[in-house]
Amino acid sequence: MDRIPILKLGDCLLVSIQVDMHDRLAISLQDDLTERINKDRARGVLIDISALEIVDSFIGRMLSNIAAMARVLDARTVVVGMRPAVAITLVELGLSLEGVATALNVERGMELILSLTGRKRLLAGELNHNARRKE
Amino acid sequence: MDRIPILKLGDCLLVSIQVDMHDRLAISLQDDLTERINKDRARGVLIDISALEIVDSFIGRMLSNIAAMARVLDARTVVVGMRPAVAITLVELGLSLEGVATALNVERGMELILSLTGRKRLLAGELNHNARRKE
Repeated sequence: MDRIPILKLGDCLLVSIQVDMHDRLAISLQDDLTERINKDRARGVLIDISALEIVDSFIGRMLSNIAAMARVLDARTVVVGMRPAVAITLVELGLSLEGVATALNVERGMELILSLTGRKRLLAGELNHNARRKE
Repeated sequence: MDRIPILKLGDCLLVSIQVDMHDRLAISLQDDLTERINKDRARGVLIDISALEIVDSFIGRMLSNIAAMARVLDARTVVVGMRPAVAITLVELGLSLEGVATALNVERGMELILSLTGRKRLLAGELNHNARRKE
């Protein structure tokens, strides 16, 4: 696979990282994401890493780079779905995901992006609300 | 990677298929999805195949199986993000994705699930609406 798919959800973009990242794939992801932020006027980028068993310094730097690039394009980046073991390893290795916000799952990530971008209408909150309504 | 991550969006589940499927992975995806439909009381399953360059009879059968399993658990399945070339090949090969609805992208897929499940409140419509509001 040469590209990681980018999905549009409202004014957020969602990326689910499932494959081993290498230099070229990381660069094409950064290119694609910045282009899509621009084209789709996205306010947020959600990066799901629930499939990753290891976050090393390469992945950490890539996430920080994406967050920095998105930031100058006026979009916030939230990493979601981090496994507990990954969080432990990150802290033990002293890796900080600089400039990267984290949230438990996609819905909470969307809520965080909305609060970071200062909008009142809680898109993700509505999602939860709707889910509860039907029960 | 041993598992494909399943993301929850409101009362839909989203799966992005990015890796080559093999028997064991397909079975574990079916197991995980049925379990999550049950646990999260999901009404819809969105399967993004925008990363797939080929949909052969194996993938086609897997998608049909997932749709059939979801259906008996009262959830609808929509395949989104099919590449034009994949659509052409499917028709040329005479493969029909039996029981599987398709939509252009995730947002339209969510709209379709809402209309299939007969709910009036358009969740995905709200997503679009919010995206337009801010422009």
